[in-house]
Amino acid sequence: MAKRAWTVGVDFGGTAVKVGLVMSTGRVHRMMVIASRRLATPAAFIDGIARTVRSLARSVGVQSSQLCGVGIGAPGPVDVARGVIHVLVNVPGWHEVALRRPLERRLKCPCFIDNDVNLFTLGEWRFGAGRGARALVGLTLGTGVGGGFVCDGALYRGVSGAAGELGHMIIRAQGWRCACGARGCLEAYVGTKGILRMTRQAVRKRPGVLRTMAHEAQGRLTPELVSRAAQRGDPAARAIWERVGASLGIGMVSVINAVNPDRIVIGGGVAKAWRFFAPAMTQTVRAQAMAIAQRAARIVRARLGAEAGVIGAAVLVWQHGER
Amino acid sequence: MAKRAWTVGVDFGGTAVKVGLVMSTGRVHRMMVIASRRLATPAAFIDGIARTVRSLARSVGVQSSQLCGVGIGAPGPVDVARGVIHVLVNVPGWHEVALRRPLERRLKCPCFIDNDVNLFTLGEWRFGAGRGARALVGLTLGTGVGGGFVCDGALYRGVSGAAGELGHMIIRAQGWRCACGARGCLEAYVGTKGILRMTRQAVRKRPGVLRTMAHEAQGRLTPELVSRAAQRGDPAARAIWERVGASLGIGMVSVINAVNPDRIVIGGGVAKAWRFFAPAMTQTVRAQAMAIAQRAARIVRARLGAEAGVIGAAVLVWQHGER
Repeated sequence: MAKRAWTVGVDFGGTAVKVGLVMSTGRVHRMMVIASRRLATPAAFIDGIARTVRSLARSVGVQSSQLCGVGIGAPGPVDVARGVIHVLVNVPGWHEVALRRPLERRLKCPCFIDNDVNLFTLGEWRFGAGRGARALVGLTLGTGVGGGFVCDGALYRGVSGAAGELGHMIIRAQGWRCACGARGCLEAYVGTKGILRMTRQAVRKRPGVLRTMAHEAQGRLTPELVSRAAQRGDPAARAIWERVGASLGIGMVSVINAVNPDRIVIGGGVAKAWRFFAPAMTQTVRAQAMAIAQRAARIVRARLGAEAGVIGAAVLVWQHGER
Repeated sequence: MAKRAWTVGVDFGGTAVKVGLVMSTGRVHRMMVIASRRLATPAAFIDGIARTVRSLARSVGVQSSQLCGVGIGAPGPVDVARGVIHVLVNVPGWHEVALRRPLERRLKCPCFIDNDVNLFTLGEWRFGAGRGARALVGLTLGTGVGGGFVCDGALYRGVSGAAGELGHMIIRAQGWRCACGARGCLEAYVGTKGILRMTRQAVRKRPGVLRTMAHEAQGRLTPELVSRAAQRGDPAARAIWERVGASLGIGMVSVINAVNPDRIVIGGGVAKAWRFFAPAMTQTVRAQAMAIAQRAARIVRARLGAEAGVIGAAVLVWQHGER
């Protein structure tokens, strides 16, 4: 019943907020995208989301109160039970913001909020590369490096909704400074900032394709630029991705040994460089993870692409309906 | 009902096998200890355990078939559903050994097998320092460094019974070689071997109490010796425990950020040096773990001492009875 109704998934990203009407098959029927800066305060967010949800509902001839529900993924730790965002990563002014109740009052349908990487993992578990996994670890690579854990179909959130911060497992004590304040976090090496740090070092040190491309881009470095250089066979660019792969592998060894999952699904923008970093990652895991746990764990690339968060947010709604 | 009956817990350690008759209060009524080398083969183990269990049962006037059950903790990954030990750490010749069925045939009561650190954690959760925790991480410090995870009263074991190998989270990529074959594992720094490595370095480098004690012990170094030197104020010994604490803290940062537990209980022989390593550990966690997760997590010392494994093995039996 509930599964057949229209459901809206919201993915609150750093640059764009995606709002999608999701079908019970997991397909996104229609998607609207709003610039995040237009929804940067809680009041603006609630208002903007309410309007967008209503307009999406109208587009298929229903009212928002007839929706199965609205699921929202937020980039930060969330108090799922109370529907409160503790804090947002990289968006100032969000501190213990209650979103669920105001949205429910406006839309007259059930609303649920969770961490965005949790919902990425839930989406991939239900419709993507995590299908059928009993203990699924999700990892997203981008500016931030996040994680999620779905066990027997249920999200594990920890005691304060803050579990799964796999980007902040320390892989090198006293290593590079991380945005979180610690040193040597996985994110410091495989997040965008770490990749660009290695890129700047490489550009300074060696002439070649990467340096030329960096100059052409007037120093505006991105992981995509490093991928394009790697694509053209540049050894410096390839070496950067190999280092990223080796660091990722170290993190995955810890995850495999601690969690013993049957699958790890890796997504996020930086995962587009999969074929450049995956060999070094796999090699590190083979060489260093414990045998029994390693045999059980398959590391795969996410399948739902940029829609994973929106789809996962819809799955969150359905899971509540199923209870 | 079942909870009132006598239950036997077995803790299969590297030097001693402890077999205890446990009361429903968690108190060990009577304990027998057998040298592990006498039970080193599966056949000898089954025979020795069966005889010991029978004699313990007789001592309280019952037969083994009237016991609530026998729980066994083994130092290695276990297939809990099938009652099979995959492999034992540090005991050769144990490979996919089915223990449960033969023991049940001999004793005519239900038998259950699990990993020893899982049972340590379960015991501390039910009767020790983990009481009331919703997400409890257990950590044992000794020759090996092991871990366990009890969530809402249930052990999390991973897909092949190998979860919780927290000693083999990598805290320093390309760091010290670990017994597991990897480099930079937590165990390589805070396990007995790592502590003694630091001790040998310190003894070579500086004269002082530690060096004198090492000479008196004719080079037979132990963590206890380092503790005695620390007790006497030796700066070299204190520095070793500080380094152990800092490394432990790094591992705990990863655990706190990834798992978001409300409690971490630390036991095992090396935990006796708690007051020497705990300050550096706490300081590292304070400085580096993420705020929300850190606020939720209390790190405490285990309370059940050497009986934790035996008590936890009994809890395993009761949990099966409750289902």
